[in-house]
Amino acid sequence: MKILLTNDDGIYAEGLCALYEVLSLEHQVYIVAPESERSAVGHAITIEQPLRVTKVRRGKYFCGYAINGTPADCVKLAIYELVGSVDLVISGINRGANVGINLLYSGTVSAATEAKILGYPSIAVSIDAYKDIDYCFAANFIGVFVKYIFSLPLDLPFCLNINIPHINPHKIKGIKFVRQSTAKLKEIFDRRIDLHDRIYYWQGAEEHTEKDLDTDVIALKEGYITITPIHFDLTNYSSLNKLKQIKNKLVIEF
Amino acid sequence: MKILLTNDDGIYAEGLCALYEVLSLEHQVYIVAPESERSAVGHAITIEQPLRVTKVRRGKYFCGYAINGTPADCVKLAIYELVGSVDLVISGINRGANVGINLLYSGTVSAATEAKILGYPSIAVSIDAYKDIDYCFAANFIGVFVKYIFSLPLDLPFCLNINIPHINPHKIKGIKFVRQSTAKLKEIFDRRIDLHDRIYYWQGAEEHTEKDLDTDVIALKEGYITITPIHFDLTNYSSLNKLKQIKNKLVIEF
Repeated sequence: MKILLTNDDGIYAEGLCALYEVLSLEHQVYIVAPESERSAVGHAITIEQPLRVTKVRRGKYFCGYAINGTPADCVKLAIYELVGSVDLVISGINRGANVGINLLYSGTVSAATEAKILGYPSIAVSIDAYKDIDYCFAANFIGVFVKYIFSLPLDLPFCLNINIPHINPHKIKGIKFVRQSTAKLKEIFDRRIDLHDRIYYWQGAEEHTEKDLDTDVIALKEGYITITPIHFDLTNYSSLNKLKQIKNKLVIEF
Repeated sequence: MKILLTNDDGIYAEGLCALYEVLSLEHQVYIVAPESERSAVGHAITIEQPLRVTKVRRGKYFCGYAINGTPADCVKLAIYELVGSVDLVISGINRGANVGINLLYSGTVSAATEAKILGYPSIAVSIDAYKDIDYCFAANFIGVFVKYIFSLPLDLPFCLNINIPHINPHKIKGIKFVRQSTAKLKEIFDRRIDLHDRIYYWQGAEEHTEKDLDTDVIALKEGYITITPIHFDLTNYSSLNKLKQIKNKLVIEF
């Protein structure tokens, strides 16, 4: 397959290298990724500044293109200008899980979503750890999984959000197909004072309030590899149908 | 009502002032908005840098808080630290329509989505023009609309994406409740050479390929005020259900 690899941790991130090493053994792999970390940029795109492309070589590893933009920019520029059409777009392996509400903020997931928007099947892959990460199992899992992916009962172009626990591989309980949790995050705004007596805030969100077992948040915590097919249709159809019914009764005078 | 006003064009944007002028006649309005334009930032949040708050006064107009962050940051910081709970969050009036695929990239819409995530009803408002904009009708429309909003058959917290044509108000055909178009955009990457012989790209997307009349893209073009209820559940349930059925048959050896 011709695979486009991107991420939001930047072109020098270990998770991207790990995937490249595994996938390039059997596929033609192109890398187009942000020149530096662009975490939590969501589905941002760069329209106020020009985008620049730098070729990057990393010793024996790979040759790729670094972009001064967001993950979504990378996918667009790759498809339209640098690489052309591909069989599959993979975003990751992200340092840190992307489950629940965090999907909205995730650059990793947005890159995969962008691929689907452009008509290409895609997966976003994240590992549930921030420190001392061993990407070996996750990368190998994806290497095997992509061989099966087109035999899954999915309409093209699919977009799968995959999260992998960072535990001893023997303790992984299996694969679970689950919905995205939409439960609130417990968020913190930490108010501090700088050396010039000025207030500043760090924001963080560490805890999910989800209780439903059949969600990405809980299944991942329980030791499953979670897979959630995602879409980009933001219409709330249940509300839309209710609104359409009252349409003729809504008289707003202005 | 206690209303939080934000946007992605920045705290000095005309569209925000126009809304403030109308809404503050009848409501208690708080402004927390980006210190400068943050268009197309999607649902980005700021986690790598501290957030700072600056009080802004604009002559006779208003006093608000400017944040060195994204629209989603503004809503979070407002609710958690600066303003507290509110009855309604309004994001806009954005310069330029936010319909179709652009909802994914829009900071204006993401601010409203963030409010819904946090449990507050919200609307995103955009006007379909980029130059020589008269915000008067749009602001007045919203001023009237918010009086009716809690009588609409919507579950709380709702999130409505509203787009207003920039035409003679007498020519506006009415209000249409429509779905978000998910049709592709026609995109351009304009390759140029700078003064140092280096390549750079401008990206732009001007045209929607949508044909379905019952979408935000087409209804707006036809002269309707469009209203689309939106959600933030990215699960593709139709695919999820298919995947759940094959679950027991999926044997991946690794």
